[in-house]
Amino acid sequence: MSMFEEKNQPLTPISELGEFGLIELIKKQIKLSNPTTVDGIGDDAAQFNHKGENSLITTDMLIEGVHFDLSYTPLKHLGYKAVSVNVSDIYAMNGTPSQITVSMALSNRFPVEAVDELYEGIMLACERYGVDLVGGDTTSSRVGLVLSITAIGSAKAEDVVKRSGAKPTDLLVLTGDIGGAYLGLQVLEREKAVFKENPNLQPDLAQYPYILERQLKPEARKDIIPLLKELDLKPTSMIDVSDGLSSELIHICKSSGVGCRVYEDKIPLDPETIKVCEEFNVDSTTMAINGGEDYELLFTIPLADFDKIKGNPHFTPIGHITEEAEGMVLQTRDGTSAELTAKGWDSFLKKEK
Amino acid sequence: MSMFEEKNQPLTPISELGEFGLIELIKKQIKLSNPTTVDGIGDDAAQFNHKGENSLITTDMLIEGVHFDLSYTPLKHLGYKAVSVNVSDIYAMNGTPSQITVSMALSNRFPVEAVDELYEGIMLACERYGVDLVGGDTTSSRVGLVLSITAIGSAKAEDVVKRSGAKPTDLLVLTGDIGGAYLGLQVLEREKAVFKENPNLQPDLAQYPYILERQLKPEARKDIIPLLKELDLKPTSMIDVSDGLSSELIHICKSSGVGCRVYEDKIPLDPETIKVCEEFNVDSTTMAINGGEDYELLFTIPLADFDKIKGNPHFTPIGHITEEAEGMVLQTRDGTSAELTAKGWDSFLKKEK
Repeated sequence: MSMFEEKNQPLTPISELGEFGLIELIKKQIKLSNPTTVDGIGDDAAQFNHKGENSLITTDMLIEGVHFDLSYTPLKHLGYKAVSVNVSDIYAMNGTPSQITVSMALSNRFPVEAVDELYEGIMLACERYGVDLVGGDTTSSRVGLVLSITAIGSAKAEDVVKRSGAKPTDLLVLTGDIGGAYLGLQVLEREKAVFKENPNLQPDLAQYPYILERQLKPEARKDIIPLLKELDLKPTSMIDVSDGLSSELIHICKSSGVGCRVYEDKIPLDPETIKVCEEFNVDSTTMAINGGEDYELLFTIPLADFDKIKGNPHFTPIGHITEEAEGMVLQTRDGTSAELTAKGWDSFLKKEK
Repeated sequence: MSMFEEKNQPLTPISELGEFGLIELIKKQIKLSNPTTVDGIGDDAAQFNHKGENSLITTDMLIEGVHFDLSYTPLKHLGYKAVSVNVSDIYAMNGTPSQITVSMALSNRFPVEAVDELYEGIMLACERYGVDLVGGDTTSSRVGLVLSITAIGSAKAEDVVKRSGAKPTDLLVLTGDIGGAYLGLQVLEREKAVFKENPNLQPDLAQYPYILERQLKPEARKDIIPLLKELDLKPTSMIDVSDGLSSELIHICKSSGVGCRVYEDKIPLDPETIKVCEEFNVDSTTMAINGGEDYELLFTIPLADFDKIKGNPHFTPIGHITEEAEGMVLQTRDGTSAELTAKGWDSFLKKEK
């Protein structure tokens, strides 16, 4: 309740718009005018120019109870993941991260030791990715932990890869495998429920080393950027898999004004991911496509460059780009086609914990 | 309660360390290694180099109930202020801001119209300061509004002014006047209390236009940077007044390894500020020194440059730098000396609203 205003206008709940709708609404208000700005909102990172070298900037906010659950997330892992998530956006522009800032709000439930543990993970990630922590803000919160990380990186202007350059006939290529992070989360949620029922039962996690690591301590694909250079391969578009393959495909297609066809039987899954899907009795393709948080890179290359990635264990061609009119299509194992929809994770729709 | 850990170690409440203690603890963990990093934590903004031009980066997190109270802060003003606060840190490095990112978490209490209003203020500030909003993150929060803004700017490497360059005999100079923002807050808090008692009473604010604007819609001193250039004046050190004059003086003295002597009768106060101090029956010097949120610039210049600022209405010499051993001293009107202490605003000590 404001002291000064008496508004009777009808108000719109944010859940009606969703996160993407809200971003669209914000984008409408934005005008870019600074001569150093190359690109603003709408890609993995923004770009601004410094004498031929483009600086890249990206930022993420993580809220306890929305993005992470400290009942099964060690703070050290959380710190590591928060950095990985951000530098991943710089790699997704074919850039190299160099600095981060970390802002943090904490309720009085957190002791100093908790901050220490969190920063241990942050610094471990800084070392891993070769970035420096150069600033931030620390403050108190009323409830829980809030982390806001900004990553800075750079790339030569001509090396930057955006979401918008995919062309019909381009190959769609994915690094690593996907779906594991989401299934790791399902295992953790299940064990949390078991623990709540009976706190004396020890959680049963030893059989899921891969998917738990994918969820709790994901690695951004630092290795891919030099590998692409080595292969003399510049993707026509690129994005990192944070919200889920389906959602990222839609981003690339909409930004590039194209369609795509993805083959279910080409989607790379880890054997452990498949095994846990059977255990949970869920469809592995659905998990892989909608799961998110894998932090693999999804990119497109001209068909003529296929030889450069052929047989490389890091890369899996999963489909190709089509004309926009053909839509965004998943060709299933049984030969039928399904339309891809954005089931990307939307914090405004998700039931809050 | 974590599922996996059973720690019996003694834990330290963060309030024992305070915000500055916590920052020190974090700083100890940080190692800088990226070749582009010029300077990390410890000044108004971090610096990283791009071919002779230094990029500057600074970030602030604002939490509802800790940093702002929406019962008397219009969202448009909050947006404007959140940007001002950040670009102010870039000006305090003698730099020019160029881009910002805005991350925001909102509880379901906020309708879309609230986001619109907030961004209206943000965009107004972007126009005023010539910066582009280039990125950000929007997500849901469990409670209230969280804003995290990062500002990017630049300066020629040789133009950057840090906190650490003050030398004995340098003049201490302040722009504008101080104390108003804090008194504006006191008026708003008083009227809020009155309103709570009797919601039919209209708040009585018309007599306080200056101090309310200082609190609700502060302006960063964009004008000072070109003015210093025009005067061919490069400060030896500079900081913006966010936590309070006393706290900023201590920052400059500690960073520079010097002491200072400030004269009570030189501290610039607006007549409205003085009038409200009388009304509240509080000491105006105490308010001015400890208040904070004025976003004026405090800087030091060699004594030989005094002629360049003499008589300029933007600048008030308030004292001078001394040897470190002489301490940080306020010389009062009656000729006695008092030691300056950091009463800077500390969110970890402040009672949360």
